[in-house]
Amino acid sequence: MSESKVVKVAVAGATGYAGGEILRLLLGHPAYLAGRLKIGALTGASSAGQSVGELMPHLPELADRIIEETTVEVLSGHDVVFLGLPHGHSAAIGAALGEDVMVIDCAADFRLRDARAWRAYYGSEHAGSWPYGLPELPGHREDVAKATRIAVPGCFPTGATLAAWPAVQAGLVEPDLTVVAVTGVSGAGKKAKVDMLGAETMGSLKAYSVAGAHRHTPEIAQNLEEVAGGQVAVSFTPVLAPLPRGILTTVTAPLAQGTDVETVRAAYESAYAEEPFVHLLPAGQQPQTQHVVGSNMCHVQVEVDQAASKLVVTSAIDNLTKGTGGAAVQCMNLALGFEEGAGLSRAAVAP
Amino acid sequence: MSESKVVKVAVAGATGYAGGEILRLLLGHPAYLAGRLKIGALTGASSAGQSVGELMPHLPELADRIIEETTVEVLSGHDVVFLGLPHGHSAAIGAALGEDVMVIDCAADFRLRDARAWRAYYGSEHAGSWPYGLPELPGHREDVAKATRIAVPGCFPTGATLAAWPAVQAGLVEPDLTVVAVTGVSGAGKKAKVDMLGAETMGSLKAYSVAGAHRHTPEIAQNLEEVAGGQVAVSFTPVLAPLPRGILTTVTAPLAQGTDVETVRAAYESAYAEEPFVHLLPAGQQPQTQHVVGSNMCHVQVEVDQAASKLVVTSAIDNLTKGTGGAAVQCMNLALGFEEGAGLSRAAVAP
Amino acid sequence: MSESKVVKVAVAGATGYAGGEILRLLLGHPAYLAGRLKIGALTGASSAGQSVGELMPHLPELADRIIEETTVEVLSGHDVVFLGLPHGHSAAIGAALGEDVMVIDCAADFRLRDARAWRAYYGSEHAGSWPYGLPELPGHREDVAKATRIAVPGCFPTGATLAAWPAVQAGLVEPDLTVVAVTGVSGAGKKAKVDMLGAETMGSLKAYSVAGAHRHTPEIAQNLEEVAGGQVAVSFTPVLAPLPRGILTTVTAPLAQGTDVETVRAAYESAYAEEPFVHLLPAGQQPQTQHVVGSNMCHVQVEVDQAASKLVVTSAIDNLTKGTGGAAVQCMNLALGFEEGAGLSRAAVAP
Amino acid sequence: MSESKVVKVAVAGATGYAGGEILRLLLGHPAYLAGRLKIGALTGASSAGQSVGELMPHLPELADRIIEETTVEVLSGHDVVFLGLPHGHSAAIGAALGEDVMVIDCAADFRLRDARAWRAYYGSEHAGSWPYGLPELPGHREDVAKATRIAVPGCFPTGATLAAWPAVQAGLVEPDLTVVAVTGVSGAGKKAKVDMLGAETMGSLKAYSVAGAHRHTPEIAQNLEEVAGGQVAVSFTPVLAPLPRGILTTVTAPLAQGTDVETVRAAYESAYAEEPFVHLLPAGQQPQTQHVVGSNMCHVQVEVDQAASKLVVTSAIDNLTKGTGGAAVQCMNLALGFEEGAGLSRAAVAP
Repeated sequence: MSESKVVKVAVAGATGYAGGEILRLLLGHPAYLAGRLKIGALTGASSAGQSVGELMPHLPELADRIIEETTVEVLSGHDVVFLGLPHGHSAAIGAALGEDVMVIDCAADFRLRDARAWRAYYGSEHAGSWPYGLPELPGHREDVAKATRIAVPGCFPTGATLAAWPAVQAGLVEPDLTVVAVTGVSGAGKKAKVDMLGAETMGSLKAYSVAGAHRHTPEIAQNLEEVAGGQVAVSFTPVLAPLPRGILTTVTAPLAQGTDVETVRAAYESAYAEEPFVHLLPAGQQPQTQHVVGSNMCHVQVEVDQAASKLVVTSAIDNLTKGTGGAAVQCMNLALGFEEGAGLSRAAVAP
Repeated sequence: MSESKVVKVAVAGATGYAGGEILRLLLGHPAYLAGRLKIGALTGASSAGQSVGELMPHLPELADRIIEETTVEVLSGHDVVFLGLPHGHSAAIGAALGEDVMVIDCAADFRLRDARAWRAYYGSEHAGSWPYGLPELPGHREDVAKATRIAVPGCFPTGATLAAWPAVQAGLVEPDLTVVAVTGVSGAGKKAKVDMLGAETMGSLKAYSVAGAHRHTPEIAQNLEEVAGGQVAVSFTPVLAPLPRGILTTVTAPLAQGTDVETVRAAYESAYAEEPFVHLLPAGQQPQTQHVVGSNMCHVQVEVDQAASKLVVTSAIDNLTKGTGGAAVQCMNLALGFEEGAGLSRAAVAP
Repeated sequence: MSESKVVKVAVAGATGYAGGEILRLLLGHPAYLAGRLKIGALTGASSAGQSVGELMPHLPELADRIIEETTVEVLSGHDVVFLGLPHGHSAAIGAALGEDVMVIDCAADFRLRDARAWRAYYGSEHAGSWPYGLPELPGHREDVAKATRIAVPGCFPTGATLAAWPAVQAGLVEPDLTVVAVTGVSGAGKKAKVDMLGAETMGSLKAYSVAGAHRHTPEIAQNLEEVAGGQVAVSFTPVLAPLPRGILTTVTAPLAQGTDVETVRAAYESAYAEEPFVHLLPAGQQPQTQHVVGSNMCHVQVEVDQAASKLVVTSAIDNLTKGTGGAAVQCMNLALGFEEGAGLSRAAVAP
Repeated sequence: MSESKVVKVAVAGATGYAGGEILRLLLGHPAYLAGRLKIGALTGASSAGQSVGELMPHLPELADRIIEETTVEVLSGHDVVFLGLPHGHSAAIGAALGEDVMVIDCAADFRLRDARAWRAYYGSEHAGSWPYGLPELPGHREDVAKATRIAVPGCFPTGATLAAWPAVQAGLVEPDLTVVAVTGVSGAGKKAKVDMLGAETMGSLKAYSVAGAHRHTPEIAQNLEEVAGGQVAVSFTPVLAPLPRGILTTVTAPLAQGTDVETVRAAYESAYAEEPFVHLLPAGQQPQTQHVVGSNMCHVQVEVDQAASKLVVTSAIDNLTKGTGGAAVQCMNLALGFEEGAGLSRAAVAP
């Protein structure tokens, strides 16, 4: 990216939680602070015509901006367009915007490569797949760096994949994973629903979309099968917990013959030694979601249960940062040739 | 129990969360309301000499009671003694109190039958075992009804056992269970610890005592091996979540050959048809801890994931009620010949 | 009430939070347990045709009941009808049901006696007023005991009135009160609204309906003017906080000439000595909402700030129990001649 | 500050919440990112010898740093020393460090100018006063810019003063304020105490240090008397609520003769037009603490209640950012000649 060029960025679906998080991060991005990145059109559906100040008072610098309709006309003329829309809208927009516009999609539309899996989980025609924006998964950083279309990973797949891939790739476990991930409520989005009211979610825990019903299941499997080079069974159970942000993922898998904790630890140390946004905790220390809130980090720990013959890996991410908006900005940085971590914090807002 | 007899009850460790919950339930017990059950000595350690009003303002009827020292002298002369003490104290008290005094122990001391498991997890000599107070586990209701010494189950073992035993007993799964249980913070007790501060636990999730390190692991295995008639591997991972009360347990296990959802459902319907405190939810509805708060209920759901070849059972309990104090009162009712559900609510304080 | 008579109770608006709380309390009511009180029709609007099990899983005993439409036909034939409807519906139902049917209204319709205040705050014609169901306010217990139509107080007016009336009546303060009340989220009801989502309310605090805009303002003033025998200025500011249940009210008022803490304490001791559901805490101990959750209690404390020349009274209630459903049952008990506290707990579900 | 100079910063009491927040902000400070600010000694008391990774896993960049003892030797040799110690330690350290070392104190020691008020509230000898680090209070920005010793304001005084001073200064209210401020739990610090456990604070609200007992009371009065040019009565009631961060302050005061909402609004617009960290919300929109979490902002709203003849001002801050650590960094920026907002965010981590 030439130093002098000003990058113009639009956010479609700006008033949802993903859009709001992208904007929060862009406002602290060094390119923005230096005047080399401009925040252009902010679009929405039902929110069009309202001000950012009414809808997202946590972004006072943008308070006077008016939300526009999400149309190709409004979005074109930008260098980067982030899409924070419900799934099903990205294909048309991606097709209409020229290849000179970088499109970074936070929806599911282009994540899955298997058309059958798409149809089974989404019940519509498969739009195709774009480079998958998880730079920490082998090979993907390079793909993203060359891309002009990027599919940002789902929040659960991010937490589960970062917890599991080093063990799966190294054959340290049987390819038969039980993933139980506990999530905060912002993952459900900013839609009015009785079962997501504060009164229904505070002081309560529940599993949902159990037994493979969650749409992130095939995405987790796709990531792990990629590094396994073969089939990986994934049982995925999400649990809703009373906190705004954060996902704590537990991955339990049968130990392969001869796996011990030293081998496991060595595999993870090797996988993550150079990764700016994955922190393998010292032995004995468990990840805690509070320690990643607002940051782009994933904290990971590995343990071996010899009695039950299981590997247990845990990870913590902020579902809106590393799980969505932070990953989107990380991908933009890579694809534009910015420093990968620009505008992304490793320090979290704790407590 | 003859109608005319007045039962005198003491609670040792009355100012901890287990003790407080037992007292809350006793104050609404029909025998208490009818004057046929008296609340006698309330004892503590560091709290001795203080009033209930200072320590447990949520029990205003007992506000003027003074906490006494936990000694055999103070506790003897009661018909029933509840022990809500840290583990390691029950054996001496149980031995010193005559067999005419019923002792209901909320600590771990007499739960495990295997002395080796005890030593491995508690690092001290095994005190023995008492009838295990989980009436819903085959055979135990009868044992408890005849007992004068009762070991109240741990909170996690209650949630996990009620979720798993019907499938394990019927051989519907391989004896290789992954248990991930998310718990509220009251399970850690009323001790001042930095990592249990509100500021450290609100807005946060973390796993702890991972990979078989939690002391409830052998207790879960013991219960399930009892119904399996053979070894059962249990991988147990507790996760701490920001709510005061509640445990949401997920049990994932490989399906045995030929198991389908109808068979599973039939097994659970049969197991729980007559149980007052286990509610198998209608298909499609997941348990939620809010729906059991303050009640003695366990809500259960079963699902089959054919793609991953797993049974996924979920359960919700209030860790202080069905998980501790409610179970203790349920056992007292059985052992005294009261109605099993006396003083115990099936309706929860929701939202 | 004759011992032999069975009381048949209907709940209109049964699936809202007020209705659910009334049902929770009725299920533990001694008359219900003795078969002398039957739960009849449960009605709703959009929920009609659904089962209680789907909508209120925390009431498993009623799981198979089907919600009916709220019509006079459905409600007639009961001895007691609780109304948990949005305001504006009670007048028609109250008029259509004969005087032999007791109607206990949890809406605002019949609370205000001043038609102008009603119109100013509700913008519709005033329906009149019914006996006001706050037995702890002088004269009201007697009125309620004779009534067949009862207006259950609002949650904020309950907390504020119980905190303030003894001082106002005794002239210990200037009639110029600042009431700031912090409330849990269930007070907003079970309607899908973006600003009441878990993600918008957890980890957050906000004031709302500030500067006299809240509809409970004239109700607080009415109660206090009744005991003052003159005008009382009330500045009322509600604050929303991230908890399901509970209201913590602070009342600050200028001390009248010569008021000291002993006089104040004596006035409150005298006011509440015989009240089963108001607990004046020992000096130095502040009310905490956790200590009243699920109970019908109001905990109160009084303090004098001589430097600022202010009385500061604080109170804690559970907005759904003493603040709504518990008060409704307390009124039913009085009006039917049951023991006032039947089915109502003084012990709370804490922690 | 010359461009080439590297500023070396120490944090004493680094492992408390104030210290941790200062470090979080410094790690994102442009001078740090540019290598012109170095984080030197981090000191503690009981934590000395432990690593930052163990104690503050949310700061992975500093994970390997070892906490040192808080001594003058360790702290000298830095250009800036932040003190995040309990009150009573700052005087000795401030005296021992030369005037060439800038000392920014987050404790109360040097905030009060009135020795009698200090003694009354802290029970020890008054150490004196330092320039008071609230740049938004008239005259203080200039004082801070010249200072080498700075007293960072208390969290409650920050929220209350920013809400009240423009009205007090302009004589729009009688000098008789009722301040009720609802706070998250991190304000109580990182000390193990039973009443600050998660189980005691989640799902609960309580007032504390009522009726002028809170030590921040004279600090609020001092700030307002400074702009009033006369005595200001302050009734201050803090309320603890279940969230980690945030203070929502309500200030209620009798309207002065003739004050209307337009006059009030004009006063606040004028006071805050140029302030980077105070955001007067559009009419009708109330501050919400979620919208300032992690940011250095104070959101403010003003309303007039003509019926009760009161001004009601509300403000929201993050108690650890604008309420402590952010204010400390803002003061450092001013005193070092950095841009006042360097390293401080106006955008918040919401939801």
